[in-house]
This record gives sequence, structure tokens and C-alpha cells, in this order.
Amino acid sequence: MKNTQNTPQHVHFDYSRKERLGLPEAIFCEGKDRSIILSLLQEFNKNTGKSILFTRLSPEIFYSFPSEVQEGVSYHTLSRTAFAFALPAHASKKKVAVVSAGSADAQTAWESSRTLEYLGIDHTMFEDCGVAGLWRIQKALPEIEEHDIVIAVAGLDAALISVLGGLTKKPLLAVPSSVGYGMAKHGETALSSMLVSCSSGISVFNIDNGFGAACAAARILNMFLS
Amino acid sequence: MKNTQNTPQHVHFDYSRKERLGLPEAIFCEGKDRSIILSLLQEFNKNTGKSILFTRLSPEIFYSFPSEVQEGVSYHTLSRTAFAFALPAHASKKKVAVVSAGSADAQTAWESSRTLEYLGIDHTMFEDCGVAGLWRIQKALPEIEEHDIVIAVAGLDAALISVLGGLTKKPLLAVPSSVGYGMAKHGETALSSMLVSCSSGISVFNIDNGFGAACAAARILNMFLS
Amino acid sequence: MKNTQNTPQHVHFDYSRKERLGLPEAIFCEGKDRSIILSLLQEFNKNTGKSILFTRLSPEIFYSFPSEVQEGVSYHTLSRTAFAFALPAHASKKKVAVVSAGSADAQTAWESSRTLEYLGIDHTMFEDCGVAGLWRIQKALPEIEEHDIVIAVAGLDAALISVLGGLTKKPLLAVPSSVGYGMAKHGETALSSMLVSCSSGISVFNIDNGFGAACAAARILNMFLS
Amino acid sequence: MKNTQNTPQHVHFDYSRKERLGLPEAIFCEGKDRSIILSLLQEFNKNTGKSILFTRLSPEIFYSFPSEVQEGVSYHTLSRTAFAFALPAHASKKKVAVVSAGSADAQTAWESSRTLEYLGIDHTMFEDCGVAGLWRIQKALPEIEEHDIVIAVAGLDAALISVLGGLTKKPLLAVPSSVGYGMAKHGETALSSMLVSCSSGISVFNIDNGFGAACAAARILNMFLS
Amino acid sequence: MKNTQNTPQHVHFDYSRKERLGLPEAIFCEGKDRSIILSLLQEFNKNTGKSILFTRLSPEIFYSFPSEVQEGVSYHTLSRTAFAFALPAHASKKKVAVVSAGSADAQTAWESSRTLEYLGIDHTMFEDCGVAGLWRIQKALPEIEEHDIVIAVAGLDAALISVLGGLTKKPLLAVPSSVGYGMAKHGETALSSMLVSCSSGISVFNIDNGFGAACAAARILNMFLS
Amino acid sequence: MKNTQNTPQHVHFDYSRKERLGLPEAIFCEGKDRSIILSLLQEFNKNTGKSILFTRLSPEIFYSFPSEVQEGVSYHTLSRTAFAFALPAHASKKKVAVVSAGSADAQTAWESSRTLEYLGIDHTMFEDCGVAGLWRIQKALPEIEEHDIVIAVAGLDAALISVLGGLTKKPLLAVPSSVGYGMAKHGETALSSMLVSCSSGISVFNIDNGFGAACAAARILNMFLS
Amino acid sequence: MKNTQNTPQHVHFDYSRKERLGLPEAIFCEGKDRSIILSLLQEFNKNTGKSILFTRLSPEIFYSFPSEVQEGVSYHTLSRTAFAFALPAHASKKKVAVVSAGSADAQTAWESSRTLEYLGIDHTMFEDCGVAGLWRIQKALPEIEEHDIVIAVAGLDAALISVLGGLTKKPLLAVPSSVGYGMAKHGETALSSMLVSCSSGISVFNIDNGFGAACAAARILNMFLS
Amino acid sequence: MKNTQNTPQHVHFDYSRKERLGLPEAIFCEGKDRSIILSLLQEFNKNTGKSILFTRLSPEIFYSFPSEVQEGVSYHTLSRTAFAFALPAHASKKKVAVVSAGSADAQTAWESSRTLEYLGIDHTMFEDCGVAGLWRIQKALPEIEEHDIVIAVAGLDAALISVLGGLTKKPLLAVPSSVGYGMAKHGETALSSMLVSCSSGISVFNIDNGFGAACAAARILNMFLS
Repeated sequence: MKNTQNTPQHVHFDYSRKERLGLPEAIFCEGKDRSIILSLLQEFNKNTGKSILFTRLSPEIFYSFPSEVQEGVSYHTLSRTAFAFALPAHASKKKVAVVSAGSADAQTAWESSRTLEYLGIDHTMFEDCGVAGLWRIQKALPEIEEHDIVIAVAGLDAALISVLGGLTKKPLLAVPSSVGYGMAKHGETALSSMLVSCSSGISVFNIDNGFGAACAAARILNMFLS
Repeated sequence: MKNTQNTPQHVHFDYSRKERLGLPEAIFCEGKDRSIILSLLQEFNKNTGKSILFTRLSPEIFYSFPSEVQEGVSYHTLSRTAFAFALPAHASKKKVAVVSAGSADAQTAWESSRTLEYLGIDHTMFEDCGVAGLWRIQKALPEIEEHDIVIAVAGLDAALISVLGGLTKKPLLAVPSSVGYGMAKHGETALSSMLVSCSSGISVFNIDNGFGAACAAARILNMFLS
Repeated sequence: MKNTQNTPQHVHFDYSRKERLGLPEAIFCEGKDRSIILSLLQEFNKNTGKSILFTRLSPEIFYSFPSEVQEGVSYHTLSRTAFAFALPAHASKKKVAVVSAGSADAQTAWESSRTLEYLGIDHTMFEDCGVAGLWRIQKALPEIEEHDIVIAVAGLDAALISVLGGLTKKPLLAVPSSVGYGMAKHGETALSSMLVSCSSGISVFNIDNGFGAACAAARILNMFLS
Repeated sequence: MKNTQNTPQHVHFDYSRKERLGLPEAIFCEGKDRSIILSLLQEFNKNTGKSILFTRLSPEIFYSFPSEVQEGVSYHTLSRTAFAFALPAHASKKKVAVVSAGSADAQTAWESSRTLEYLGIDHTMFEDCGVAGLWRIQKALPEIEEHDIVIAVAGLDAALISVLGGLTKKPLLAVPSSVGYGMAKHGETALSSMLVSCSSGISVFNIDNGFGAACAAARILNMFLS
Repeated sequence: MKNTQNTPQHVHFDYSRKERLGLPEAIFCEGKDRSIILSLLQEFNKNTGKSILFTRLSPEIFYSFPSEVQEGVSYHTLSRTAFAFALPAHASKKKVAVVSAGSADAQTAWESSRTLEYLGIDHTMFEDCGVAGLWRIQKALPEIEEHDIVIAVAGLDAALISVLGGLTKKPLLAVPSSVGYGMAKHGETALSSMLVSCSSGISVFNIDNGFGAACAAARILNMFLS
Repeated sequence: MKNTQNTPQHVHFDYSRKERLGLPEAIFCEGKDRSIILSLLQEFNKNTGKSILFTRLSPEIFYSFPSEVQEGVSYHTLSRTAFAFALPAHASKKKVAVVSAGSADAQTAWESSRTLEYLGIDHTMFEDCGVAGLWRIQKALPEIEEHDIVIAVAGLDAALISVLGGLTKKPLLAVPSSVGYGMAKHGETALSSMLVSCSSGISVFNIDNGFGAACAAARILNMFLS
Repeated sequence: MKNTQNTPQHVHFDYSRKERLGLPEAIFCEGKDRSIILSLLQEFNKNTGKSILFTRLSPEIFYSFPSEVQEGVSYHTLSRTAFAFALPAHASKKKVAVVSAGSADAQTAWESSRTLEYLGIDHTMFEDCGVAGLWRIQKALPEIEEHDIVIAVAGLDAALISVLGGLTKKPLLAVPSSVGYGMAKHGETALSSMLVSCSSGISVFNIDNGFGAACAAARILNMFLS
Repeated sequence: MKNTQNTPQHVHFDYSRKERLGLPEAIFCEGKDRSIILSLLQEFNKNTGKSILFTRLSPEIFYSFPSEVQEGVSYHTLSRTAFAFALPAHASKKKVAVVSAGSADAQTAWESSRTLEYLGIDHTMFEDCGVAGLWRIQKALPEIEEHDIVIAVAGLDAALISVLGGLTKKPLLAVPSSVGYGMAKHGETALSSMLVSCSSGISVFNIDNGFGAACAAARILNMFLS
């Protein structure tokens, strides 16, 4: 047996993924050991000039770190994301609208936002557009339509998705969120609703996966790079 | 053992339920023996002057019966319902709007319609109001609002319910339908979506249970009887 | 990107919903930040003369607030609800019976009660009417029948609903509660039981959604407003 | 390889199980080959003086057999059971009540009845006792109470079980039936309801397993044999 | 509204249930308020001469009570049960064997044991009889067979039940326990396994419901009371 | 009631959707009446110069129609699609690769292909690229990379998606197919696998929804229209 | 688009898989077109000297083929398998025991048997060893122990697996079968039971996947090839 | 009743299982009382010369024990396993490769590793071989192929399993891990993916059951003992 009990658990980073795939290298922090996250934050910060994206990094853990570590990165509490610095502005010059149904969807919507920010992709947030009050999405629509791609986050019955899908011909990337109780089933109802939406051509992602939708937007914008 | 192998299977009718509950006595025919349904149709028809509601009575079975049996009742193919004659016009003088999202919801919507017809309750059908094309429900809304109760039938993600729930203050009775494939899960996604709708105060019924929603409307209209 | 990391998360209230829909504006507090709830309680209290309904507001959070904030609202521990003051008595003069099966259903039943109280709707509680002891519901029935609408809360197998549905012709609004263990499945068994009840015309709501049933009662009572 | 492609598929009967366990040897015919069932019916019939119980034997298959085979056994269409002759009257002299909620539960209730008949156990059928009409079970109760064990078959929400469990102190063996549609989930809702019934000490069996409940009754009656 | 916010939540005891049903009145403590349990323990103890059964009463709560309250009842940590004193020895003079598969099933098995003890029913524990080591059940079998009823508790795949069901003709009451991880699904696999056991006539109860199986044993033993 | 029993069921077409959304108007034929499909085929064919897309149109139904109806459209048996004529070549001049894992995924992959063909979008099929034989996808990769968007269809464990997602930076639209048995769960395992793929930014669609993925490709290509 | 509507659907065989993996190339016929299967049977038969394994080939389809096609392969009705000729005797000289619980498991057990036969692996069938009659497995055990690997097929609660796993130290490959009704859940209960068996080190396969277990045995026997 | 309330809960060890089965006796510590684990650690340690395997022993509990107890065993934090000393080197001289997809799978992979270590079986760890970066498994493959058995641990979509299954003819023992969120469903998606892998002959184990896969490897290696 090569590895022994005392060998630290190595994580092999994929430094070249960004280049190959036009997608971010990211660390999913939930469930990871505090000490591993700390050593990663020390490796990827403003001082070292290296930057990767940290997702699902809880405030409890982040704010327990030494101040110099905290200062080395940009941390965003609501989305639980961190990175040392964003990549240069995306060459495509395209814009993404991030639309959310209710205030409870903010955590996931801001995870999309922060991933786009890290990738240097221009974007705008449109919050509280749920269709129980139909005028909200109708009022926001003209400005949304000035963007090139729409990421929409919704929980519960995700009715926003079908309505929005019928109003825009843009690529629509839909992320279910795990809000609600009872038959909301931790986001499974929203997920299934999005998958069977009567509006056509809607791309769906895992529950609460705001990161994934931003990556899909990046894949689309890769088409505009020469 | 009292009953023997050859004893016919008796069904005890609840002739007084209408009176006690203001609700119809109904026979759910799916899974019942053809011979039992035939004998019931012979008992409850125009000639005998007795009328109950038959639901889930398939055309294959109904049209296999002798013509005099067929002539004794009003049969409606799409909703698979039959009755000898409707009850007198409901004393409440209230009206029910039956709204459906797509053409695939018609079977369930018409089961509601026919149950209301049997109960003598005035009502109007509004079909194809799904919100993938938002103008459809918006166009129908003024006329829907002239009614007192709204029954809405939708499948897939049932997005119509949240939109409609935000547009009307009427009692809204929502019936999921079992249309679609894959994650539509035979109507379970629509059911869950309705139960977690961000619009408040929406009453939900079993999948495809157009009959039940009409009965709930009857319970409400019972309040207007002296 | 318009919004920045430091922008407070705005919540846009729907001040006019009550007027449009005859339904309460409510804040679902579970999962919301303590600081957001505090600022809302400071905005909607006796001093400001504005009142909305707070649901799922835990005692731990409420009693951690400054005493002047606590004094500004009526808080009810069991139902976890708060509001500054109730709306004027409902013009319909109708009464709602809130019936529950067991003591474990109290939290949900009282959420209905408090929502009705906030809406100014007259109502009476009938607790511990579960049908394992059949005489309890039979004894309460005459007084229940003096009301216009029945909200019934039950968990486990929800057998109370079918029994009650067979005894009354009133509108019956059934709320499953998440009591029990094992195959109670956090209320899913009670929910499914209500949806397939052999009593007809029963309206069903999400698990533990006492608020929703009270809103549905309000929708019905809207019919009596001129 | 010992067995070859042409070797008939042998079924080893447990001739001594009745003696050892006081339980019937039974053949579950669903899914079995027509030719295998035929050979078994030829082996266990009036002429050979050997009798075992056949369950789930469809009329289509049974009535396709030669008339002498049909004449050799007692076949019961509704319960889909067959046996050559019943065992002698059970020495316990105890009686079983078989109670069912609705006419759709008859198939399962009669499977219990026929299994008891085969075992020589005295019993009575009480059909259509569903609690949507509460007087039905109340009317039947005095006569049910003259029996020693109660088997109760119910589908949908199985509300009959909790009511009956609160009315009798007899052993109560509850069998869910797969009637209904949508959230009845082929009997799973009835099964879960029975398992979480607020009445205590209720024994539950697999969906549609009328045979199993009768066997459990036999296990209890075994206690009265010396 | 009759009840007010300050009204204590009354629990109506069913003092006569024992007499009517031969079953215990029991308080399920899980999820109940500490103060309610305390007041109940003060009402039902050795000093007051009244005794009911408390189940799912956690050691954390019990041992937080004043010592005079603790001294007033017999508390059993593993089974989390309490009662002031047991009922007189059951007149039937029958004995129950409580068999469990592994040490992780002890909590549920002892809940059965303590319920039987409260009811005055003679019984014996047979622990660690899981069939992965087949000799364990085979060794215990002769002594088990000296009892009249068998309660068997098993988790995981519950293979003990089919083996035991094939070895004894006694009434077999099977309780699934929520041990294990992954596909043990908190006891659902054990429950389903018991329901489809190839041994016939096995009575099944809710997951971890040791109390229920003891009550079912009491229902059977009621048959021996004159 | 406006509509009557004899009124034909009207379907309102959305003739302007193509223009508004850059997406096809399509008729989902499964579950629709043969006579309705026939009348639609008569309205949308080469003679009338109108063309929409028919999906899930079974060969049994299509080939039962009069030959002049059959001749009026291009029907594709494997994908069960029909249309009168394709739209003009898409102005974007982009190309889509449709990749499938096994021969059982062909039906869904070809539904994507035919939808793209109807929309005038250039595309290439790459079948049998499942990763159990890794060289297949590796061999096809260079040619796949010459396309702009990748649609990938896979069933079972859908392992192809994670592998492909790691090899290309193109937009990757993943469609689960309902092949397999047992724990393949009619495509739910493939769907869940795609949603949790460790490759980032993968868009997922409903089970067997080849049409939807093609529409999502169209939404992306809409970005290239001026 | 390279492929056209009229292009036959090619299936690329992996002629070298046997060599590379020591595993059979197999065709899963369920759901495949009759014409495709026919052409494959014509390609792989005694005349062409090429042999692969066909699984899930229904008798209805097989016996509809021309007699010369039928004669070219060895077809086994119960297991629904076909092949032209078996591979030479496996060089390992090891033996496999195929054990099944009940007669309903025969189809899956024989699929294992026939796959082993095709692979030239010596094996013996042990049928009807279910543990409801414990002596059956105990009687067969000595002969089973003369084999090197044990494949065990069981449905329902799969109790045989835990018992057998405790009796032998051989590799134990467990295949759940989809027999039974209700909570047998088409084999999911058996599958879960096997996965959580209290006997250690049991390998589990998909429901009804007798082929897979035989392949796993082949993987083990590959270890004995030089 | 033989046992009394105060009787300590005895656990009967199966000292001879190793001999009979070639499998380890193991204690699953999760959910067990701290005091029971302590007494077991005192019984099985270096001083007493007795060694068994402890699994799922949390660091919180282990490091709360007296230092002499800690010193008496080898504890491994990541895998949460402990044992006094390993068994002698396995006589088979075979080697096992333990392959894992991502760093989140380490806990389960190391449970396999430590079980093999305890059993004296030579093995090597290959971590971070997930197929989103295909070169990782391709780079490791030659060294993996120098081993005799492959244990592979993967979560999420478990795509590694199908790829690896197509690359090696060794016995492949696949363990799903409960990493991920949303539709990862605590490992159920990975489990189902493994069971339906298009690579043949893959043995599957319960979620996170690294111990079980090591035991299955031991069963295979038992074949090489004389």
C-alpha cells in the first residue's frame, strides 16, 4: 500500500481546464475539511496572483480564518462564494440576465451572478419576478430582453419558467431552488416542473446549481470566441 | 358464511346523499364489471325517472350496450360520463368557470363540466389558456371574472395555477391532469406544483379528478341555499 | 452588474394585494435572515400603523428581539405567527370551524386560526376530534354544523377527513400535518389520504399549510362581499 | 450442468406444511405458465383426493381448461381462487368477520373469505362498510362484534381501519387494496395509512393480500388447538 | 373564537379506553413540549395512583425533571418508556416471545417488552437472533416455541422474519426497525421485506413501532378473557 | 354553458410563435385522437403550403391514413416525426452534432435530428458512442469538435455525458433516454446522472425529449440572427 | 446531415471485446426491431461460424422466424436466450453454483445459466432453495459448497441471500428478481434487501440481471487464466 | 421476563466467523452507545492480543477516550476505522486496486483500504480518477492493471464505473458514495447508475459501503487458499 494513514489527502488541480474548456476551475467546499479549505485559500489569493472559484463556502468557516486570508479574497456571504480576483472581461461582449422568482431564491441566483463575475461576463440581476404577481416579470421583461442569455432561478412550482419561456426567444437556463416545505420536496417539484415546462427548449440544471447555469452560459459564449 | 359464491355482488346506493350533502351520488365505472354497469344503466335512466352520475365510463363499454340502454342516458364521450337527466337549475344562481391549460386537459375539464351540468350548476368552459402563451389567459380573464368560482385544470408544470391565482380573488379549485411523459410522472409533478403554488389559498384535488372539483364547487354553493 | 455585493437584499411588498385579492400579504419567515425579519417587524407594527402577517416565525428568533419590537406585535407561540393588529371584522359575517384530529396537529390548526383572526374572520377551534375515538367528532358535530366553512387538520392516516366529509355538506378544507414517524412520511401519507378520500369534494392543501386553508376560506367568503 | 433445456421445471410441494404450521399450502398462479397450472389442477382435485389452494388464478385461464379439470375443483371467479375441497371445520370453533369498505375491495375480501373457507374456518362477509357513510359500519358493528377476529379490507385512504380499530378490541387484520387512481398509488396510500393508524395494535399485510390476512387469522386460531 | 392565545393546550384523556379495548392509553412524547410532559408525569405517578404508558420519552428530557417526578415512575432508558406501575398480571396466562435480529434493534424490541410489562403480559426477550449466523435462531427456537405469540424485530433486510415464519406456526408480529444506512432507507426496506415475506400470515407494523406490536398481542390475548 | 357536448374540440394554433420565438410550432401526437391528427395533417401539408412539426406520431396511426395524406408530408418512422417541408436553411450557418450512446437511444436522437432538419439547421449524427468502449467517443471527437453545439442522448447511467463534457467546451445539451430495465427506472437514473454530472455547465432536458434539446439549440442560434 | 431517413440503423459490433475483457458480446433484444434481430441471427449462427449471445429474445419473436434461422441457433425458451454455439470449456476449470429461491426466479436464474453455458463455464442449478422452508437450502448446501462461486437469485424479501451469505465463504453474486406484487415493487425490495444484507461482502446486480452476474463470475475466473 | 431493566445490553461476538468465512468480524459503531464502544475497545486491543475491526467510529468519540485506550489501537481518522493490529499477510499474494473518482469519495475508499489492511491484503490507492478529466484514469490504468481485483468508489453519476468497466477485465467491485446535493440523492443516483452500467459484470454494494467491497474481495481471494 503506497499511501499511508498519515499521508495528507492530495487534491490535484486542473490548472489547464479554463484554457481547454473555457470553464472555471472551482472548489465545492461543502463537506470539505476546514484545514483543506484554508490551505487552498492560502494558495489561491491576491498575493499569489492565482485565482480559482470557491463555492458553498459557509460564512461560519470563512470568517473563522485569519484576517490576512480573508483579505486575500473577495467573499460574498449570500452566495457563499470566494475568489481572489475576477478574470478579464469576456471577449464576447455578451450580457446575461439573472432572473429570480422570490427572495428565497437569492442564494442560488447570486451563485450564478458571482460565477459570471469571476468569469468576467457582464450581467444584471432581476430579483422578485415571481408570477403570482404577473406585472413583475412583465415590467422587467423589456430590460431582460436587452441581454443575450437568461438564467432564471425559481423554487416551489417554478411557474416563472413557463411564463418567461413563452416571452423570450433567448437561451433560457433554468435552475430550481430548494425553497419551500412539504411537497416542494427540497426543490424536486421545481426541477420536475422545469423539465416538463410547456415552453420549449428550456435547459435545466441540478437543484440550487447556480454555478452550473453560469458555466452553461460560458459554454454558449465560447461560441463567440475566435 | 352468509354470502355464497353465486350471490351477485350487491351495491347499496346512498339515495339520500344528495339531500344530506348537496352532492351527487356517482358511480366510478373504471374497473367495474360490464354487467354491473349495464344493470345500473338500466336502473337509472329516463324511463325509470331515476338519475345518478356515471364517471369513467369508457366509450368501448358504453357503445357495446343495447341501443335502448344507450338512448336512456346522455353520454359524453370525451369526459366519459353519463346520466339520465340533469338536476334542476341550482338555486344559488352562481356560475362556475372551468379553465384548462391545454387540449390534453380536456378530458378532465369536461368531467368537471359534466358533473356541474348534472348538478344543474351554470358554467362556462375556457380551454387552451396555458401560460406558455400568456395572452391566452389574459384575454380570457375578464370573462372568467364574471363567474363566481374558478375550476382550473392543468398538467405538466401547472404554471397556469400560480398565474391565475395571482389574477383572481375567486375561490380557485385546481385539478392536476395526468398528461405528459417522463418527469410529468402521470400528473404528480402538476399536483405537487399546485400544492406549493406561491399564490395563496388554492384548493387542490387528486390527479384527473374533475368530478371532485365540481363537488367542491357544489359544497361552496350549498352556502347560498337557505 | 447593477447590484453589488454590499447592496441590501430588497423585498418588494405587495401593499395592494389585500385589496385586489381579498387575501393577506404574508411573510414566510423560515429560512429568512434574523436581521431581515427584525427590520420587517420594525416596519409593520402598532406604532407605524401597518400590519402584515408573519408566519413560521420561531420563538427563538422572536424572543431575541428588543422588547419594544416584541411589544409592537401580537405574537402566538404555538402557531409561530405575528401581526400588529387584525383587520376589521369580515363583512360576510360568516363563521369558520377549525377542527383538528390530535394534539400534535395544534401547530397547523392554530396557524389557520391566527390567519383567520388576522383577516377578521370569526371562527371556533375544535381540537382532539380524531376518529380513533369516534364519539369525539360525533359530539362536536352539531356545533361544527353551525359554522359555514370547515377547515380540518389531520396527520397520520387523516381518517378524520373521510368521516367528516361524509357528515357535513359544508365546504371542507383539509390540511395534512407532518406528525408521526416511519410511514407517516412527514405528512405525505396524510396528504395522499386526503386526496383520495372516498368523501367527495374535499379541498386539499400542502403539508402543514394552515395559512393556505385560511386563505382559501377567505376566497370563498369574498363571494359574499358586494 | 445437471438440468437441461428440456427438463420440465419441477415444483417441490411442501406437503407437510399444513401439519407443521397450521397454514395452507398455496399456489400463486399469476405469472405461472398455463401448462404448469393445468398439471397442478390435475394433481390436486376431487378425484385424486388431494387439495391445495390456488390463488390469483384468472378466469381466462381457468375456463380454458378441459371441463373435467374444471369440474374437479371449486372455482370462485371474483376471488380468482380454486381448491378441490375444503379442510374439515376448524377445531377452534372461532369465527372471523371479513369487513370491506367498498365494492371495489371485493376481490381482496373474497380472497380472504375463500382462504378461510378452504381452511374450514367459520366466517361472515360484511361488505360496503366504508366510513364516508358512517352509519354503515355502525349498523354492522354489533354483528361484527359477535366474531372473534376481524379482517378488514380497504383502499384509497383506508379510513375504515382507524374507525373500526377504535370500536373493537378484537384482533384487527388490515389489508390495503389497490383500488383508485392518481395518489391512491396502487394501494400504497392505503397501506401507509393502515401502518400509521392512530388506533393501536393493527396488523397490516401486503397490498391485495387477502390470502395473507386469512393465514394470520389461522396462526391466531392455532393457539386454540391443543 | 373561543380559545385564546393564552389558553393552555388541553389534552383529553381517554380514561375508559383500557376498559373498552383492552389496550393501553399511551402518550407519544416525541415532539411534545417538555412542560406538557412534566405536567402529565405529575398527574400519572405512584402518588396519584394513576398509571398510563409514556413512549418515546427521551432521557435528556426525563432526567431534566425534578427528582420527585423521576421517582414517581419506572423509567427505562433504552426503550425510552415510563409508567407509574404495571397493570395486574394478564388473566390469559399466555406468554409472548420478543425476538430481535441485532443489537441495533434493541430500542424497538424493548419498547415492545415494556408495553407488555405495563399490560401485565408475561414475556421473554430473545436478542441477537439474526440469520447471518443461522445457528442463533435455531438455538433459540425451542424456547421461543414455548411461548404463545412471537413479536420479531428486525432491520436491514429483515431476513429473520421469513426464516422464523417458516419455523413456527404461532402468530408472528413483525416490526421493522430503522437501523442501517443507504438503501436501508430508515427502515423502509425492512418494512417492505416483511410485507412480501414468502412465509405466510405475518402481521406487520410501522417502522420502530414496538408499542403497536405489543398492542396487537394484547388484542389477541383479549380473546382469552371471558 | 357555451360549448356543448357535440362541439368539436378546437385547437388554437400559434401561427406567430416561430416569428416571436424562433422556435417551431409542434403537435405532440401521443394520446391525441386519430381523427384530430388526420385533420391536422390535412391542414399542414405540401398542398396547403403550411408546415408544422408533428412529434410522437406512431407508424400505426400514420400508415393508417389515406395515401394522399401520407404523400403530403415527410414521415420518419424511427423518430416518429412528420412535417410537410423544412424551413429555409438557418441564417446562422452553425452546425449541431447529435451524439448518442447506444442503438437504443436512436429514437430520441433522431427526434432531435428531425427537429433540426425541420428548422433548417445543419447537423450530423454520431451514433453508438457509448463509453463502455471508450475508443468510440475518442474516435468521433475530432469531427464532433467541428460543430458548434453538441446534443448528446444517453440512457442507463449516461456516463457518456460526463466524459463528453470533459472533452469539449461547446454547449452540451443532454437528453436522457428511457432505455433499460430495473433500476434504469424508465430514464430517471440517466436524468439524475446528467443533472449531477461532475462535468460543469451541462444543460439537461426531460426524458426522451429530443425535440426540446433541438429547440434549445435553436434558442442559442437565435443569438446569431441580426 | 450525413445519415438520411432511409439509411438502415447500423450496429457496430465489438468483435474484440471477448478477447480484451474475457466477457461475452451480447445483444439485448427487448425493444429492438424484429427485422434487426432477424438479420443478426442470420449473421451469427452455426453456418457462419460466428456466435454471440442474444438475451431477452421473446419466444413470440424467435418462433416467428424462418425455420432455417431457428435451426441455426440454440434457443432456450425459459431464459429467452440464444446463441449459435458455446465457447470452448473455460480454462479455469472452476465451477459455479446457480441457486434460486422459488420457481418464479427461474427465468433470471436460467439467464445466468445460459450465459455461463455460452462462456463454457461449468455450473449446476439449485432451484427452490427459499428459506421459508429452511431445510431446502440446508440440504443443498454441501453440494453448493463443492463449487467455487455462488450466483443466487431471489425475489420478494430475498431472505435467502443473508442466510446463504452466512453459510458460505465463496464469492456470492446476488441477483434480485422482479417477482411478486404490491410492496415487492417489481424487484426493488429484493434489490434493497440484498444491498443491506447483514451478511458481508455480497455483490449485487440489477433486477433480473442474470446475465450480469454470470459476467461477474467470468471476471473472477479471468484471474485464473495465465 | 428474564432480562430486566438494569441488565446491560450484551453483544455476542462471533469469534469464529473469520475462520468459517474468511471474513472479518466487525463492529459498526454509528448509533452505538459511547460506553459500549469503549468497553469493546478495551477488550480488543494490543494488550489483550485480540483484534477486530471497528467501522464508522467518529473522531469525536474516539478522541474522547482515555489515552491508553487510544494507544491500544490503530485509528484512521478519514476512514473512521480502528483495529488493534492487522491479520498476517494474506496467503493468496493477490493485490487489490482501490480507485476513487474524486476527493469527496475518500472516506469510503479509505474504509475499503483499511478493511483490506486489517485483512492483510496487499493493495494500492488510486485517487482522483474521475472521468470529467479522462486522462486521469487513462494515466493510472497501466498500474491499476497490475492488480488482481479493482474496487472503485464514485459518487454523483458514477461515470467512472462504466469507463473503467470497459477498460479492464478484472473483477470490478463498485461502491457508490453519498457525495453531492440535489438529485445526487445521497448516493442513490450513483448506486442506480452502477447497477445499470452498460459495462457488463460489475458488482455493486450499498452506498458508502467500502467495508462490504473489501469483504467481497476477500471472498474472491478465499478461492486462492488451499
